Amino acid sequence: MASVRYELITLGDELLLGLTANSHLTFIGAALGRQGARLGRNVTITDDADAIAAQFRESWARSDVVITTGGLGPTCDDRTREVVAQVLGQELVFEESIRAAIEARFAKLGRRMTDNNLKQAYRFSRGEVLPNANGTAPGLWVEQDGKVLVMLPGPPNELNPMFTEQVLPKLSRLGLLAEREAYVQVRTAGIGESALEVKLQPVLAPHGDALSIAFCAHQGQVDLRLSSPSGALSMERLQDLAQECVTLLGEDFLCIGHDSLAKVCADLLRAGDHTLAVAETATGGLLANCFTDIAGASKFFAGGCVCYSNESKMQLLDVPEDILLQHGAVSSENAVAMAAGVAERLGADYGLAITGFAGPCGGTKENPVGTIFLALYTPGGVWSRRLAQSGPRSAVKQRAVNGALDWLRRELVRAKRGCCGEASKPQRAGGAMQ
Amino acid sequence: MASVRYELITLGDELLLGLTANSHLTFIGAALGRQGARLGRNVTITDDADAIAAQFRESWARSDVVITTGGLGPTCDDRTREVVAQVLGQELVFEESIRAAIEARFAKLGRRMTDNNLKQAYRFSRGEVLPNANGTAPGLWVEQDGKVLVMLPGPPNELNPMFTEQVLPKLSRLGLLAEREAYVQVRTAGIGESALEVKLQPVLAPHGDALSIAFCAHQGQVDLRLSSPSGALSMERLQDLAQECVTLLGEDFLCIGHDSLAKVCADLLRAGDHTLAVAETATGGLLANCFTDIAGASKFFAGGCVCYSNESKMQLLDVPEDILLQHGAVSSENAVAMAAGVAERLGADYGLAITGFAGPCGGTKENPVGTIFLALYTPGGVWSRRLAQSGPRSAVKQRAVNGALDWLRRELVRAKRGCCGEASKPQRAGGAMQ
Repeated sequence: MASVRYELITLGDELLLGLTANSHLTFIGAALGRQGARLGRNVTITDDADAIAAQFRESWARSDVVITTGGLGPTCDDRTREVVAQVLGQELVFEESIRAAIEARFAKLGRRMTDNNLKQAYRFSRGEVLPNANGTAPGLWVEQDGKVLVMLPGPPNELNPMFTEQVLPKLSRLGLLAEREAYVQVRTAGIGESALEVKLQPVLAPHGDALSIAFCAHQGQVDLRLSSPSGALSMERLQDLAQECVTLLGEDFLCIGHDSLAKVCADLLRAGDHTLAVAETATGGLLANCFTDIAGASKFFAGGCVCYSNESKMQLLDVPEDILLQHGAVSSENAVAMAAGVAERLGADYGLAITGFAGPCGGTKENPVGTIFLALYTPGGVWSRRLAQSGPRSAVKQRAVNGALDWLRRELVRAKRGCCGEASKPQRAGGAMQ
Repeated sequence: MASVRYELITLGDELLLGLTANSHLTFIGAALGRQGARLGRNVTITDDADAIAAQFRESWARSDVVITTGGLGPTCDDRTREVVAQVLGQELVFEESIRAAIEARFAKLGRRMTDNNLKQAYRFSRGEVLPNANGTAPGLWVEQDGKVLVMLPGPPNELNPMFTEQVLPKLSRLGLLAEREAYVQVRTAGIGESALEVKLQPVLAPHGDALSIAFCAHQGQVDLRLSSPSGALSMERLQDLAQECVTLLGEDFLCIGHDSLAKVCADLLRAGDHTLAVAETATGGLLANCFTDIAGASKFFAGGCVCYSNESKMQLLDVPEDILLQHGAVSSENAVAMAAGVAERLGADYGLAITGFAGPCGGTKENPVGTIFLALYTPGGVWSRRLAQSGPRSAVKQRAVNGALDWLRRELVRAKRGCCGEASKPQRAGGAMQ
């Protein structure tokens, strides 16, 4: 099974022009990975017919399973179906049941079906149709030359359920999935990539080539993946090694698996029966959105405020006007007032606040663009921190959010252990720390 | 110039396992596209040395410019530099200036440099170094065999400025960029892909093969790109055709270029000297974040509330308890109260509210998961709408936000034209529409 060669061809000029993120790679790679099947390669090419034919021929020759995405739609630039049929020596045949499904979909939306939609009603003469519950273009499934071809429509809300509900079960029935993850992932926060490698040497180094190690750094976090492609180490042994890493990591350990920083915080909040409220300026909703991406967030998340104007800080969070006049909105004093204000307004146990200059404009000599003040209100007191970020607006926002979440996480871990949290040390609120 | 063949090799198991989005493709594809250079292909492969060597050899043979990302870091799975040097027949030489820069970077962060970082201090014997202002691994630049190789580090906050500030100017000096976009993009909202093609036939059909047309549908929007790879139509002619499309599109026209729905709303708000406040439950900060992603948002965006608990709706937005008891939080009545409440609290001209069940849990028989109520408060009155979405939580959230933004956009366009907006029609607030 481990040797099944999967290849993904993603079609679309919009991907190569950087206009759309390649979410198909992320989704399909992860879905296969969770089943122990490893995508070996992903190739993104243009909608040009010659390019499609050449790439498909090459991928088909070297793979066991080829998955294509995109190019099945109704418009003139959708050529994949025709080109691939030709390479495989298959006929395209009109399928009345697809036509009927497309027409029914238009009727349900109260729209008239235009004739160009009919090109989506063709299937391979020796192949199956994967019905599309969320759009007009069905997927196509072909078994030929001892290989499998899966062709999927481009829109993620059509592709994703089709892959999960139809493709994975069919691959499983053919014995092409291992049904379990082939690696163990250890997530960390607050430690750099090279320092992490050095720290974990005692656990990882003794295994030589039997152990495959991969590090992935992103926005203040580093993930470590352990696997054993040769099979020399069992999955149980890999899990034991991961546990040894956890011991060495201490508070820098985030989770084993795929949970986000926000999810780890959410679990800690739920476990302690705590509630959280957040207040943001510069990150403008990104912090709140991290929590509300978690199903069942209403159990622990009281709510949040995005307070751009000084008016809104006073109106929604009871920030005293004096603080804004004396210290400005980008100050540890305002961060502390926001964190305390939102927690008290919403009756939450914890309050987390972010204020700062995300750029590209704004900033002062003392607090240039990239300056972020965080504040954390806890049952034991309220504290602030200053971060200095660089990079474009979106990166500053994301790292400010990650910094805030990691601080909350460490505080909740300490509270759970019954230790004195940082916030409960007898130090003055508003003290700025780098 | 048009024939310069660019290819991007993105390295990293984390991409193929779907653990990290391939943001390098999005960033580099867009950056090249803006300069009229089209990325012809992107291949994502694993960190395995044999795979890297085979792919690099193939890509190098068929391209004029090869760009690689990732695999330049300090850890044991970073092998790109060594493998590519071997394929090109180059030596790797130790570069003292890189070592010094890495050490200085660690010193600045107050950390000790571990020895594994030294592998990043090697450059190609016949090549240049691209200094890295934001990380430890420098980029590498090689001109050989009449081709260019650019090797970039994986973290986006290191890669992106390196590409913009160093790589693009070097490519430009070699005459490998056209310095202007090679296509015109027309963005639309609220019209389907096939209907759009039919609607624009009168403008587009007469040009046959001279005109290359691409459609891209995403979350309630469809983008149309016009280009002329053969050069038969000039850029000016393409722009004229785009203008003819705009005329046919009417209110379904969003913009020419790359502006987001939120950006178009922001420009309309600024142009009319209006301010906006938002209130959300199900979308939990995503709506606010769309606006605060725009630099200078404080000029038109008063702020927003993420009100998960009923307590927070009453406390922050003055939603009457009666409404929550009688109609529930997922109701047009509550949406209207939220929109009006947040606009009045923050003194904004417009208030936009979203409430609903994003799933996977929650929902009632009457309002199942995916039910979203929107409300729009305007100077002319307040209105609500009901949307029925399907799909996973993140898709429901994104489409609810896009639906709300498109409604606001149409209202602002009508207000600008001085027409009666929908909201000023003499109809009762709270009237639900599909």
